[in-house]
Amino acid sequence: MSTLAVAGGRVLLPNHSIEQADVLVDADAGEILDVAPDLAPEADETLDASGGLVIPGLVNAHGHAAMTLLRGYADDKPLEAWLQEDIWPAEAELTPEDVAAGTRLAAVEMIRSGTTAFADMYFHVGEVVEAVREAGLRARVGHGVVTVGKDEEAARADFAESLSVAEEYDGAADGRIRTAVMPHAPHTVGTGYFEEFVPAAREAGLPFHFHLNETEAYLDPVAEEAGVRPTEYADDLGLLAEDTWVAHGVHLDSGEVDRLAESDTAVVHCPASNMKLASGMAPVQAMLDAGVPVALGTDGAASNNDLDLFGELRDAAMLGKLAADDAEAVDADAAVRMATEGGAEALGFDGGRIEAGAKADLAVVDLEAAHLTPQHDLVSHLTYAVRGSDVRHTVCDGAVLMRDREVLTLDEEAVRERAEEAASELVARAED
Amino acid sequence: MSTLAVAGGRVLLPNHSIEQADVLVDADAGEILDVAPDLAPEADETLDASGGLVIPGLVNAHGHAAMTLLRGYADDKPLEAWLQEDIWPAEAELTPEDVAAGTRLAAVEMIRSGTTAFADMYFHVGEVVEAVREAGLRARVGHGVVTVGKDEEAARADFAESLSVAEEYDGAADGRIRTAVMPHAPHTVGTGYFEEFVPAAREAGLPFHFHLNETEAYLDPVAEEAGVRPTEYADDLGLLAEDTWVAHGVHLDSGEVDRLAESDTAVVHCPASNMKLASGMAPVQAMLDAGVPVALGTDGAASNNDLDLFGELRDAAMLGKLAADDAEAVDADAAVRMATEGGAEALGFDGGRIEAGAKADLAVVDLEAAHLTPQHDLVSHLTYAVRGSDVRHTVCDGAVLMRDREVLTLDEEAVRERAEEAASELVARAED
Ligand SMILES: [Zn+2]
Ligand SMILES: [Zn+2]
Repeated sequence: MSTLAVAGGRVLLPNHSIEQADVLVDADAGEILDVAPDLAPEADETLDASGGLVIPGLVNAHGHAAMTLLRGYADDKPLEAWLQEDIWPAEAELTPEDVAAGTRLAAVEMIRSGTTAFADMYFHVGEVVEAVREAGLRARVGHGVVTVGKDEEAARADFAESLSVAEEYDGAADGRIRTAVMPHAPHTVGTGYFEEFVPAAREAGLPFHFHLNETEAYLDPVAEEAGVRPTEYADDLGLLAEDTWVAHGVHLDSGEVDRLAESDTAVVHCPASNMKLASGMAPVQAMLDAGVPVALGTDGAASNNDLDLFGELRDAAMLGKLAADDAEAVDADAAVRMATEGGAEALGFDGGRIEAGAKADLAVVDLEAAHLTPQHDLVSHLTYAVRGSDVRHTVCDGAVLMRDREVLTLDEEAVRERAEEAASELVARAED
Repeated sequence: MSTLAVAGGRVLLPNHSIEQADVLVDADAGEILDVAPDLAPEADETLDASGGLVIPGLVNAHGHAAMTLLRGYADDKPLEAWLQEDIWPAEAELTPEDVAAGTRLAAVEMIRSGTTAFADMYFHVGEVVEAVREAGLRARVGHGVVTVGKDEEAARADFAESLSVAEEYDGAADGRIRTAVMPHAPHTVGTGYFEEFVPAAREAGLPFHFHLNETEAYLDPVAEEAGVRPTEYADDLGLLAEDTWVAHGVHLDSGEVDRLAESDTAVVHCPASNMKLASGMAPVQAMLDAGVPVALGTDGAASNNDLDLFGELRDAAMLGKLAADDAEAVDADAAVRMATEGGAEALGFDGGRIEAGAKADLAVVDLEAAHLTPQHDLVSHLTYAVRGSDVRHTVCDGAVLMRDREVLTLDEEAVRERAEEAASELVARAED
């Protein structure tokens, strides 16, 4: 067994108390062995956490990683126009090589900002898997299904691909990669296809991930056809379950919140995307009060425009207060929980907390900075003042992905160059 | 004449086009001489901007700098309880040395994140002036007046101090420091005191800065006593004018927006503070449409919790969309204008743009980063993806305040240590 000690810093414990301690990791098994003072001498390798805070690696529970290629390509537009005029035409031109380049760029950005696990709904999933394997991250990946506007054969093939991809890649990269079946949203996949494929996916033990009630435009088609709110419709189709996690949940009525809580379906709050697309304000405090498991996500970089989950911690706490009209709502503690254990719960892995037995996914945040002085409350700092650039080291599954701000698993400069090139060519093809 | 060239980068021009050019600065006069290719060979000193974007120094047009000492001290509480239970008791214990320490910490943080000018409403203004002088920043400073809860003598003395301080320090630090009279808000200063002191201040040529309609609780006392909305009340008192700038403007009706536009009174939008205190959403797009000059501010670090104005660019664009229920509202271009020329207009100095004749206040943003790749649109990046930690150099009034991320005018480590110590002692006194 080879071991790694993250030593000399303070540690954010699962109860959010903070202690001076070292974290000893089984680097082979990718698990935390112990959290206690003076563990460094035992370890084969040491990461210096002095002056820093050791936190669970952040979990970005909803996104489309390769959309980094479209960062800043089309801003300041409403969701439907943005999708139809800009994003979908560009995505129609996406090659597997583009997805490879964009996902690697996303991986670099996430590693740099302390994210160790993410969810990805996209296309060319084999390329996503390869990028995740190389980056050393943990991920739940899947193929996004849209059937509206497709003939029956293409629609069935698309949904079938989401299943076959989920079966093919589950457990890849030494188990760091898990999968899910990912219908885009209740209103963009026909009822008949859900009825055909959901039982098959459940049979195969595959979880589901989809967009739910992101904008008001998501509600009407379902309500008109099925006569019920989308959450009820999804539940009737067998989509809600403890292993399902949905993105957004902006426009939920109280019956829908209750149904999500009862089915133990996790909701990924994406505050920046919801603001930027003027989608609305999710009832986060109401979801927390009802017992819905809530996680955080950046969504794609085109609607954010970065993958720094510390921005979502801040946005979630701030927007949650506005949504509740209550400055006590979604406090710093709740935001940190959503970004760590809430994300792990949504994606279904045993992490998001620093204690013996948990996955060895963590980040060290440098506290010696003007914007983090004074240190009255480090949980407040994590939510309101830390940014991704404060991350010094990132560890996933016991392996060091970034040491002293140098990404070790990917060649950052080459990744940036390749992405810049792929993005230029993609946009040229889309606008041709 | 000694000259400085900011060379090798791209430059954000006043029309927001971007050109490869050098910026030549008269370091003695603190003015930009020329923006053109190949100016570096002429210069006495050069700052390397290669791979970077040269932008106007950002303007933080509303804040309370020394409140950095209370960063993270009391979060997740509504404005009135937060002020009465936490902030005011702590501020009652503030010594001049605390203000010196906190303002220096704020200065380091602003320099590091590309802010070159700021407004400050606080106490012990002589200490603020000394910190600004040493830091090399530009500022509009003033003494905040509150008369409610004071006897007549103390109230008159407080307002009189705001005037005398404004007269004493105007033009300090080679003209980098200007002043204003700063009554806290229409409802926290009695009408009689306004009637007595506003004409005297106008006589002395001093501008005004105050909080306007930050929360709904700001409206009622004025409406009940004066029978009009606070903006009308302020106008009747002679407070609104082209040299007045007000903070927040969250709860404005359309008549108030028109009155601000007609009087050419600038409004400082503080989106992070408004979210964190659940104050509400300012009608920023409506103000822009009506012709109100709009700037951006962080407000104090206790309600933010940082002084990184890039956060406000992002928040302003994002929250502005939600407030207008329109993803086209407050676009990236508008956000950048508010943070630069809008701020310069609010604070009344000839800057906020990079062109010959303007004040030589600028920052160089490093673009070679994963979260800023690809580079489809750099104005979008400034609003949605750049963060303060991307700033490589900061220049104010022709002097280099930060070079290659090293602050030159203040001893950063000593400032952080002193602030940490002052903050601990302050909180201990307040809680005693
Ligand atoms: Zn999405
Ligand atoms: Zn204020």
